[in-house]
Amino acid sequence: MELFYSRDIEGGICRLDQDESGHCVKVLRHRNGDEIAVIDGCGTLYRCRMTSDSPKGVEAMVLSCEENWGAHPYRLHMAVCPTKNNDRYEWFAEKACEIGLDEISPVIGEHSERRVFKTARIEKILVSAAKQSLKASVPVVHEPVTVREFILEHGRRSFAGAQDDRLLLIAYCFEDENVPRRSIKEVLEGYEGQDIIVLIGPEGDFSKAEAELALANGFIPVHLGPSRLRTETAALSAVSAAYFRMISME
Amino acid sequence: MELFYSRDIEGGICRLDQDESGHCVKVLRHRNGDEIAVIDGCGTLYRCRMTSDSPKGVEAMVLSCEENWGAHPYRLHMAVCPTKNNDRYEWFAEKACEIGLDEISPVIGEHSERRVFKTARIEKILVSAAKQSLKASVPVVHEPVTVREFILEHGRRSFAGAQDDRLLLIAYCFEDENVPRRSIKEVLEGYEGQDIIVLIGPEGDFSKAEAELALANGFIPVHLGPSRLRTETAALSAVSAAYFRMISME
Repeated sequence: MELFYSRDIEGGICRLDQDESGHCVKVLRHRNGDEIAVIDGCGTLYRCRMTSDSPKGVEAMVLSCEENWGAHPYRLHMAVCPTKNNDRYEWFAEKACEIGLDEISPVIGEHSERRVFKTARIEKILVSAAKQSLKASVPVVHEPVTVREFILEHGRRSFAGAQDDRLLLIAYCFEDENVPRRSIKEVLEGYEGQDIIVLIGPEGDFSKAEAELALANGFIPVHLGPSRLRTETAALSAVSAAYFRMISME
Repeated sequence: MELFYSRDIEGGICRLDQDESGHCVKVLRHRNGDEIAVIDGCGTLYRCRMTSDSPKGVEAMVLSCEENWGAHPYRLHMAVCPTKNNDRYEWFAEKACEIGLDEISPVIGEHSERRVFKTARIEKILVSAAKQSLKASVPVVHEPVTVREFILEHGRRSFAGAQDDRLLLIAYCFEDENVPRRSIKEVLEGYEGQDIIVLIGPEGDFSKAEAELALANGFIPVHLGPSRLRTETAALSAVSAAYFRMISME
C-alpha cells in the first residue's frame, strides 16, 4: 500500500508538496481520477481522488477519512541524548516509529559529547517510517533542550492536570551508588496507565546532579538488564519493552 | 575498557592477528610489559602481559582468565531471512549481539528477494559489537540455508537429545488463515527453559508451505503485535522480548 504525506488538507481538498507530487506523478505515474491514500501525520488517513496531476502540486478530493489509523494504544515520549554518530540516532528514530512512538526529545546531558542536534533530517526519516509501517501519525520531534530543562518541564512537580498517572522513567547506572533500581520490564508490568516518558542518557551516562533532579521530580530509576547497551540500543529496547507491555493490555 | 580478539590462545600464549596487532601497537601504543584484555569469542576473557609488541603479530602471556564473561543466562538462535539492503541485516546483527544473541542463521525463504548472503562481513561486525558491549562470546553466524532446510534441521522431529525443552517460534502472519497465534511475549512468559529459536521471515513473509512445515516440526506461531515491522525490526524486537523475559527469571 502506497501512502502519501500532506499537511495541507482542508475543506475536502488535499494538496501534496513538490516532493510528494513528483513521486506521485513521475515515479508512480498516477493521473487525474486515480485514488490515492494520504496521511496527515496527525493520525488520520484520507482516501482521495486526484483532480490535478501536476508534478509540481498534486491536488485531490477527499472521499473518506479514518482517524487513529495504525495507532498504538498508548503514548510514548522518548527523551534520548544525541549519539556520537547521527546515523545511530536516525535508525533509532526509524525503528522506534515502526514499533510505536509519539514524541522524541533530543536532550543534551552534562556528559554529552554532541551538544548540537538537527531535527529536520529526523523528521524526514519519521515521515517515511510512518508511511512504510502504515501509520497515519508521525512522531513529533522536539527541539533539543538540556536534560535539566526536560526534567523540569516534564517532571511531576510541573504537572498541571488534575491527576498525574504518567509513568516517568530514567535509565541510569548509578554506579558506585546505592540507589535501588528495578528492571524496566518489572516497572512497566506494574503500570496501569497509558502515558510513558523514558529518559535515556549519553554514552557517559547522566551526571549525578541530573539523576538526582530526575528522582526529585518523580522519575523512577530503571535498568535495562545486565547487557551494556549503546545509547540508541538502550533507547530502542525501552521502546520494545513499552510496546510489548502495552499491547498485552489490549 | 579496550578488548582485543584472538582465536589463537594456546599453552598460556595469546597471539593477535595483524589487524588487532596494528590496532594494539600503532593506534593504542601498547608496548612489551603492558597488560591487555583479550576475548576468544567463545566466552572467555584473558588478561595477558605483552611479550612482543610487533605491529605484525603481538604476543602476550596469559595471566588469568574468566569464563562466561559478559554472558547472558540463556541461548538465543535467530533464523532471519536476508533483508533487501544488507546494512539493515548488519545493524540487526550488531544490536542483537549487544542485547544478547548466540547464533544467527540467514535463511532463504521461498518469497525471499535476496537469495545470496555473505557471512564474512557480519562476522566482523559481531566481533566489534561483542568487544564494544563487553562480551567474551561472539555469536556464531551460520552459512545460509533455505527455510525448509533450517526447519528440518532444527525442528522437534530431528531432535536427538533425551528431552527437548527448546522453545521454537515462528513469526508468521497467516493472513487469510485461521491459525491461532499468540503474542511472542505471552509465549515467552510461559516458557521455563533457556534455549530459544526464532524464525523471522522475509518482507513477503513465509510461504504457506514453509509455515505448515514449521508447525509440523514443533514451531509455535507467534505475532509481534499490531505494528507492521520490517524484517530486521521484527527480528530485533524478538531479541528484546527474549532478553527481557530471560533476565527477569534471574
